[in-house]
Amino acid sequence: MGTGEGSVSEHETSRASAPRPHVVIVGAGFGGLEAARGLAKAPVNVTLIDRHNYHCFQPLLYQVATATLSPADIAWPIRHILSRQPNITMLMARAEGVDRTRREIITSEGPIRFDFLVLATGATHSYFGHPEWARFAPGLKDIEDATQLRRRILLAFERAEASSAPDTRRRLLTFAIIGGGPTGVELAGSIAEIARHALAPDFKRVDPRTARILLIEAGERLLPALPERLSAHARERLEAMGVEVLTGRPVIDMGPDHITLDGGERIPAATKIWAAGVRASPAAEWLGVDADRAGRCRVAPDLSVPGDPAIFVIGDAAAATDAEGRPVPGIAPAAKQMGDHVAAVIEARLAGAAAPGFHYRHAGDLATIGRNAAVVKLGRLELTGFLGWMFWGIVHVYFLVGARNRITVAMSWLWNYLTYQRAARLITGDAEPTPVRELGPDPESLHPPS
Amino acid sequence: MGTGEGSVSEHETSRASAPRPHVVIVGAGFGGLEAARGLAKAPVNVTLIDRHNYHCFQPLLYQVATATLSPADIAWPIRHILSRQPNITMLMARAEGVDRTRREIITSEGPIRFDFLVLATGATHSYFGHPEWARFAPGLKDIEDATQLRRRILLAFERAEASSAPDTRRRLLTFAIIGGGPTGVELAGSIAEIARHALAPDFKRVDPRTARILLIEAGERLLPALPERLSAHARERLEAMGVEVLTGRPVIDMGPDHITLDGGERIPAATKIWAAGVRASPAAEWLGVDADRAGRCRVAPDLSVPGDPAIFVIGDAAAATDAEGRPVPGIAPAAKQMGDHVAAVIEARLAGAAAPGFHYRHAGDLATIGRNAAVVKLGRLELTGFLGWMFWGIVHVYFLVGARNRITVAMSWLWNYLTYQRAARLITGDAEPTPVRELGPDPESLHPPS
Repeated sequence: MGTGEGSVSEHETSRASAPRPHVVIVGAGFGGLEAARGLAKAPVNVTLIDRHNYHCFQPLLYQVATATLSPADIAWPIRHILSRQPNITMLMARAEGVDRTRREIITSEGPIRFDFLVLATGATHSYFGHPEWARFAPGLKDIEDATQLRRRILLAFERAEASSAPDTRRRLLTFAIIGGGPTGVELAGSIAEIARHALAPDFKRVDPRTARILLIEAGERLLPALPERLSAHARERLEAMGVEVLTGRPVIDMGPDHITLDGGERIPAATKIWAAGVRASPAAEWLGVDADRAGRCRVAPDLSVPGDPAIFVIGDAAAATDAEGRPVPGIAPAAKQMGDHVAAVIEARLAGAAAPGFHYRHAGDLATIGRNAAVVKLGRLELTGFLGWMFWGIVHVYFLVGARNRITVAMSWLWNYLTYQRAARLITGDAEPTPVRELGPDPESLHPPS
Repeated sequence: MGTGEGSVSEHETSRASAPRPHVVIVGAGFGGLEAARGLAKAPVNVTLIDRHNYHCFQPLLYQVATATLSPADIAWPIRHILSRQPNITMLMARAEGVDRTRREIITSEGPIRFDFLVLATGATHSYFGHPEWARFAPGLKDIEDATQLRRRILLAFERAEASSAPDTRRRLLTFAIIGGGPTGVELAGSIAEIARHALAPDFKRVDPRTARILLIEAGERLLPALPERLSAHARERLEAMGVEVLTGRPVIDMGPDHITLDGGERIPAATKIWAAGVRASPAAEWLGVDADRAGRCRVAPDLSVPGDPAIFVIGDAAAATDAEGRPVPGIAPAAKQMGDHVAAVIEARLAGAAAPGFHYRHAGDLATIGRNAAVVKLGRLELTGFLGWMFWGIVHVYFLVGARNRITVAMSWLWNYLTYQRAARLITGDAEPTPVRELGPDPESLHPPS
């Protein structure tokens, strides 16, 4: 790799009058970005590494997948977010491992030396021992996932319109969402709305309102993080919107054209979406440390790796617990609190002070279902219906990065609310792995009268 | 392909009390869409075929490629545009040929019988006998092209930031736009602005303002459709923005990392964009009829194919001439006029009336250069500077499809104008053919100090 002249570390340290410790943060999600911001005034040089050039607001990804928002509405260039912090360099690269002995993180652009390392590498989908399901039922973790899902959902309607065989149409108009957490609920509600409102008037040979939308949950109820009353409310609202909610029904098999539930029921369904399990990114593997069943690093009370106080794991990659010993949930506010905490620990270490322990403060849980419908639990307060929905919307707009995204998203929602239309109904991404063929060649489709 | 039951044609005709002639329109660009609209009240059934589900407003594609607008801002679902026209069915499929004897158009979804056929299949890039240049210098004809170009442009800056070798940085920060027509001028101006304003404050190791932007034209001047005075003005403005304008300099060779001009000058340039030649889609080949050098069908005065009055070719696929025998230019207003004309001819034929000849009315020419700078020629009126720029903006917003797109684009431009920022600085499209590798592996980039 050459002689070492001109590396990031050297470059950065050559700017300061004395060598500053180098903090490398991997991942510019909620946790990593908050850690970077928290170190703005610390006497360190920071390198923030992400494989994308943007920070993505994951809680609204489902609205990209269902054609309400454009990718740029919920993503913002990382460089721009941090452009006013002189001690931070951003590097677009893929992290591939950690060399703890040499104190280097291995990336697609070469190794980078660190004094402190913060791994905020997030989580990916877990198919519970069935990795082959990934191609049939993609999940929703980043912008590429969202545009691919949008493509599959819209293409299913297009192909149903082009087909004339009732069985094929039925299969093409069946959407199975697996997993009844907030993402599953939000996707099911949003697909029901797009089928019943935005698409309904535009198709002439099929009626999109007849689309069958299944929300399949292995556990006993939807939204297990919320009180039972709110779970039941969400289920009622979804059913009123035409979603079939199946609880206590694990998926045991699937293929390009079907899904099979526990008990053997086989449902023809061209479009399947995975919102069930997540698995931490391989941070624990890279470090060679202990992980829980979901692959999350077991971290010390200050979020460092046991035995290596200069390496931290935060966000969805970490198995942290709150003061009562309950696991910290994999949600944006928790990742942000961890990022903020790690910045404080690094500053304390450098100042020779004792590092504080992490105390998670749970603000609440919420999920939106559809038009005028959401469920919110904040401490003792429970909101549903229009109030819950307004609250959900305001919170999400508030936490978006950048005034422009806030205005654009709020305007898109207003327009969507008034017109029932979706603004981003584009089927894009020709280069992606053959989703069309996955929907099955369709011998019964269009052909001329003989 | 089955027995013919349930084809589009049969389905459509089964709706009407008597069999109606079936008009198949291929391509939902400006020409095809206008033809479809023009037939709204004609006693025919129309099938509009496009390989995308959206109509794309091509004149603003360069703003997607340079991160100002999102794809959804300039694209609109074809179905939605035509949802109020009961006699139109839209089919998302790829056209692959025409069987004139059987009166069928061959598509990826099977053959479709027609009584009248309108080919509005547009044009693609022409590399003047060097098809191998396509991978080095992509062009800008659709949304996928635009997001791929956006990826290449933004990635070049990212890789320059990660590199420490001056030669590599220089090459990564050199952008060569080949072709000095409106698209080339608009791209060059827009890349100059993004480098000098939106990106400049966000990079710390390289200075995006040092980017070298070359606009290379083989002919003697930029914008040959405009008067010389306006060409000269455009050149001055571009040069004031830091663009190097090279006229009379054909490109004779290129590779992943360089471009070679006539005379032998070899310029290292990682990013090359093709805005030079276009070639008509293979409509003439499909029909087996006479074409001009650019592959455009030579059409009869009513835009039908000589000898086959039920088949029409319009837009960029047609070589039509105006009343003075001058070629009709390949611009949106011309395509729209041809679409409108063909709808009138079909109606006349059905009514047993004589088909009118096509008379092209040239409204004018215009191109934008950058902030407060455009050149406009409308009849005897010539506009430049702020006035020209306002006129250009108003015209383009006016012709966008849908109130929402008009508002969104106008707001994006206002925001862009006030903040100098670009809203859609996303590097997306992991699945596309390895642009990163095309930029060259970069041994001099990031590595640790030894």
